[in-house]
Amino acid sequence: MRAIQVVEFGCPVAVTEIPEPEIQKPDDVVVRIAGAGICRTDLHIVEGGLEAAFQQRLPLTLGHENAGWVEAVGSGVSHLAVGDPVIVHPAVTCGVCDGCRQGRDMHCGTWRFPGVDGWAGGYAERMVTSARALVKVGRAGAEPSALAGLAPFADAGLTAMHAVQRLVPFAGVGATVVCLGSGGVGQVAVQLLKILTPAAVVVVEPDAERAQAARALGADVVLELPAEQAADAVLDLTGGRGARAVLDLVGEGGVPEQAMRMLAKGAVYSIVGYGGGVRIEHLDMINRELTILGNQIGTHAELSELMMLVEAGKVSLATELFPLEDAAEAMAAVAAGRVAGRAVLVP
Amino acid sequence: MRAIQVVEFGCPVAVTEIPEPEIQKPDDVVVRIAGAGICRTDLHIVEGGLEAAFQQRLPLTLGHENAGWVEAVGSGVSHLAVGDPVIVHPAVTCGVCDGCRQGRDMHCGTWRFPGVDGWAGGYAERMVTSARALVKVGRAGAEPSALAGLAPFADAGLTAMHAVQRLVPFAGVGATVVCLGSGGVGQVAVQLLKILTPAAVVVVEPDAERAQAARALGADVVLELPAEQAADAVLDLTGGRGARAVLDLVGEGGVPEQAMRMLAKGAVYSIVGYGGGVRIEHLDMINRELTILGNQIGTHAELSELMMLVEAGKVSLATELFPLEDAAEAMAAVAAGRVAGRAVLVP
Amino acid sequence: MRAIQVVEFGCPVAVTEIPEPEIQKPDDVVVRIAGAGICRTDLHIVEGGLEAAFQQRLPLTLGHENAGWVEAVGSGVSHLAVGDPVIVHPAVTCGVCDGCRQGRDMHCGTWRFPGVDGWAGGYAERMVTSARALVKVGRAGAEPSALAGLAPFADAGLTAMHAVQRLVPFAGVGATVVCLGSGGVGQVAVQLLKILTPAAVVVVEPDAERAQAARALGADVVLELPAEQAADAVLDLTGGRGARAVLDLVGEGGVPEQAMRMLAKGAVYSIVGYGGGVRIEHLDMINRELTILGNQIGTHAELSELMMLVEAGKVSLATELFPLEDAAEAMAAVAAGRVAGRAVLVP
Amino acid sequence: MRAIQVVEFGCPVAVTEIPEPEIQKPDDVVVRIAGAGICRTDLHIVEGGLEAAFQQRLPLTLGHENAGWVEAVGSGVSHLAVGDPVIVHPAVTCGVCDGCRQGRDMHCGTWRFPGVDGWAGGYAERMVTSARALVKVGRAGAEPSALAGLAPFADAGLTAMHAVQRLVPFAGVGATVVCLGSGGVGQVAVQLLKILTPAAVVVVEPDAERAQAARALGADVVLELPAEQAADAVLDLTGGRGARAVLDLVGEGGVPEQAMRMLAKGAVYSIVGYGGGVRIEHLDMINRELTILGNQIGTHAELSELMMLVEAGKVSLATELFPLEDAAEAMAAVAAGRVAGRAVLVP
Repeated sequence: MRAIQVVEFGCPVAVTEIPEPEIQKPDDVVVRIAGAGICRTDLHIVEGGLEAAFQQRLPLTLGHENAGWVEAVGSGVSHLAVGDPVIVHPAVTCGVCDGCRQGRDMHCGTWRFPGVDGWAGGYAERMVTSARALVKVGRAGAEPSALAGLAPFADAGLTAMHAVQRLVPFAGVGATVVCLGSGGVGQVAVQLLKILTPAAVVVVEPDAERAQAARALGADVVLELPAEQAADAVLDLTGGRGARAVLDLVGEGGVPEQAMRMLAKGAVYSIVGYGGGVRIEHLDMINRELTILGNQIGTHAELSELMMLVEAGKVSLATELFPLEDAAEAMAAVAAGRVAGRAVLVP
Repeated sequence: MRAIQVVEFGCPVAVTEIPEPEIQKPDDVVVRIAGAGICRTDLHIVEGGLEAAFQQRLPLTLGHENAGWVEAVGSGVSHLAVGDPVIVHPAVTCGVCDGCRQGRDMHCGTWRFPGVDGWAGGYAERMVTSARALVKVGRAGAEPSALAGLAPFADAGLTAMHAVQRLVPFAGVGATVVCLGSGGVGQVAVQLLKILTPAAVVVVEPDAERAQAARALGADVVLELPAEQAADAVLDLTGGRGARAVLDLVGEGGVPEQAMRMLAKGAVYSIVGYGGGVRIEHLDMINRELTILGNQIGTHAELSELMMLVEAGKVSLATELFPLEDAAEAMAAVAAGRVAGRAVLVP
Repeated sequence: MRAIQVVEFGCPVAVTEIPEPEIQKPDDVVVRIAGAGICRTDLHIVEGGLEAAFQQRLPLTLGHENAGWVEAVGSGVSHLAVGDPVIVHPAVTCGVCDGCRQGRDMHCGTWRFPGVDGWAGGYAERMVTSARALVKVGRAGAEPSALAGLAPFADAGLTAMHAVQRLVPFAGVGATVVCLGSGGVGQVAVQLLKILTPAAVVVVEPDAERAQAARALGADVVLELPAEQAADAVLDLTGGRGARAVLDLVGEGGVPEQAMRMLAKGAVYSIVGYGGGVRIEHLDMINRELTILGNQIGTHAELSELMMLVEAGKVSLATELFPLEDAAEAMAAVAAGRVAGRAVLVP
Repeated sequence: MRAIQVVEFGCPVAVTEIPEPEIQKPDDVVVRIAGAGICRTDLHIVEGGLEAAFQQRLPLTLGHENAGWVEAVGSGVSHLAVGDPVIVHPAVTCGVCDGCRQGRDMHCGTWRFPGVDGWAGGYAERMVTSARALVKVGRAGAEPSALAGLAPFADAGLTAMHAVQRLVPFAGVGATVVCLGSGGVGQVAVQLLKILTPAAVVVVEPDAERAQAARALGADVVLELPAEQAADAVLDLTGGRGARAVLDLVGEGGVPEQAMRMLAKGAVYSIVGYGGGVRIEHLDMINRELTILGNQIGTHAELSELMMLVEAGKVSLATELFPLEDAAEAMAAVAAGRVAGRAVLVP
């Protein structure tokens, strides 16, 4: 079958032919792909930026944001039927370790990461995953193109859901939450912050089009400013106190340092974007009694709840569909910021 | 193989011959029984007290507190090997519903209850359960008789673990927690309260031998009194304020009413024992701002943690072993209060 | 000054002349009353229903839902100035006991209850309270009649806020929350449930006008049915599973029993209304693993947060103003259900 | 009266004569000092290290770890009587802001810090503080020298209490908690970890005497190693996974970096010691889903609970008493590490 693979780091992806995936274990499921989202992580992978972290060997079939239809199930799978439309949680987990048992899927001791760690992902006609990774989709995915459009919720959406859920204890009435960045993750985060918390939501986004998206999705204040000026503006908005929570979807350049500067006493700095870092001073951590949280994707339960909100029409995300064969061009368009919303590959 | 079955409600159990259990699904496991605990619930079942609640049909193989060795595994089981000593969580759960996903095993929408709801239990040479139900046991179960002695932790111990974990938020420094009853569940509960909380633990137990057991296990105060007098004594001990938490392991007769009377403002009444009930008055629930919690067995994660404490020698439970064939006599001895500690049947 | 007092249980209240309140302690504050809400508790008091619970002696100046202006402050008060518009938390608390220290104002060991326990309340031109009881009001109370209209938030609104905040852990995405009753407390509760949780909100209210109010305030489903039929309807709506939370603002007659019947496994029954009670069966509490919560008014922090939502225009409550002298007639109108919204007395 | 003051940064403290403190506000209390602990923060202050952070002007009366007797109370204080033995919470708080209301005393918007920010501290015969800052002491402080010996619990002990309480959610059965440092704070922390959690406690302390103290207080493992080797040892002890929580009481030099290296997936780095800092990498924060917590002293409720444990004989701390006049020598001894336990000045 056709697939899109990284064949050499630093080069555009290639259209290749790979073997059909097969059921090997009782809880395996073959998913026929409706759509596979292009994530910035895919661009990092192509550049070789995650080679060391995930010990990647080439060729590598990309695609960790997937939606499609159940095409075949292993002998141990009884809660899914062939033809079911599904969205695919990015992790393949064991189901029996402490992490899985306690609902923290990303803490599975032996999790695999299709599309990233060498397990073939969804930039293809079909992929195999575990039954545990699937969430059934209802009316929202009845049409093939609509189902394709759901793919980015599998990672971009889920990451926002997980990070926002963990901010709830900090985001009570009267709190100000700042969201740094209004790309795909940020746009879902703004919607979720408005649904799940009573906090005032401030979005920092220097790009005019993305800033406008944040306004349309309900942000209370949108600061169309670079991070440094935005930090001053947040301090002004909060009477000098700072924000109760800052959700950083950028995570590189000078943004983390500015994020820290925006925090009120007792506040939380929640990290989703990566690429950079920041030096923390212990006296400052103590005097402001700060919390810093790293967030890794999200749980299956969170994906399931997110899909309920999508089904109910409460959360949406603009997408642009591209033919699978045009993956290289689509990825270049994403890299150049020429795609409004999220790009999705359709086999 | 040999089994012990209820063949007629109201009559003693019988030794019968039933077919060997077989692997049918990929995650099925056959467990060779080392020991099966006799629980008061088994006495209720024999009397017909749970016929309606669990729609039981006879004959019924009892036994929901089991420990043994893995004898055979289904094709989907890779984390357990033949010969592994294991303790058996009482529920067979699906692993993919919301309850299972979020670690609340007892909230599985389709859980089965071997030994209770018609699924053949562990009063037998072997039983089949799901791989998800098993917790591997280490040195503590290396000897067959020691492994048999662990069986009561599967339900009596687990129930105590679950209830105590949920009391932790109420049982801070300076809090008084009252444990009504010091049978098997109570004896584990006292040990866990001392390990998991800094609260003062008061045990109410009119039976002298059981009261002595509570003292030996670390209870701060043991009231060898009937519930009504004990309620007065708890109010005295707490300067008239009452206890922050009352854990009721009796749940019948006049005990629930006295339990309610012992509660301080803002306190919690935690229910484990059953058979009776109590009328609550809304004005009282409001004026004292009380919480009432029902507790159903416990989660697999809690069983796993409990076994760590048992392995570490921090929690123990006195048991008396009986041959499987003597089940009727052993059950009569339990009913008559003639067994010190928990009774366990050994095939 | 003029006041409205209970002079004999079972008789209408009377207009009387009482001495002006005076500052006696450094943190005392005299509040000039803008409005005092008429609460059903006031009707209970007039009938003698709370005589025993609060050891009331007559004459008794009613009024525990008050708003007004700071008229004089004790020597220890520096955060309030004469003329400040304020809403008055119903409790006078000590500020230094464990309950007060930990933010649980209603758990103060020596709290007083103006308008209820003998401390003169706000059915008068002025009252004295503690500086700790006051929340400054902004623009929403700039006009005297608007400030009067805020009075019911002091108790009816605050009670809803407290109960709803405690339901948040049970009211996640996909949860159904049932609110039994859509009077003043219920109308605030519906708005808060929509702001603070993503749950579906079902209101049960047999009265057509109140049912309509619930619809207008955003309830997802309004069941204009008596409790027994409503319980069946809730089970239907939830596919037989029942609701994750039931907030009972009625608390008498057959309602508590029906409330219990509506609960899903793992659900919570939250008690606000009183007058009746219900018998709980321990086996049922266990098998459904239920939680029951009593709720007593709310904390100062919750009142402060509620007022932020009111200021922001996100929570409102219809009120009808009556002259203080017409208290007896106004109370009769409330008792007869002839007042749309909450009645407020204005001196 | 006599006092010990910083008169010039970088020079030893001096014995001076200052005016008697006086009651000025209704909730002021004059405390006659029984003992004032010498904290490393005092050494930092003398060196000028906190001049900027607290805008200090000289002369400055040190002393933020105090115990003594109530000598005079303001007109608004009714819960304390002259002669009461008390321990003094380090902060003077307002009692009416959001932070105070919600029990987070250190988040008071206008808190003062006697002995640090210019408000005269307890290196003197008497000091004035707020009634809100005091915790009554029982039998444990009946003798003057015993009361003096409690002084270090006001800050060193309270800081440990606060940090450990916040680790409880991470320190369940089977968890490993690492405590870096076994000075005064560390010795209290080890005792509290054993009382409040079931976790295995590993102490890292290169100093032999302090390492021995940790062993005597119940640490499960004591690594008498520098941080870098200790990090390897912790990874070994935990099968390569790392610790669930690391409590850093050092906070400078290479320790923070090694602390980060010891963390398991999902773990928490809890910061108490200061002086240094560490660079965090966002990809690492995400991939290990780490939490970092800053801790600022603790709440009044925590001090009250800590004193209950001290009264009960469950927590203790070795102290050495010095005459107030010998403050300079005592501070030099502390700086040189020549004091076993905590040094306390006695007027």
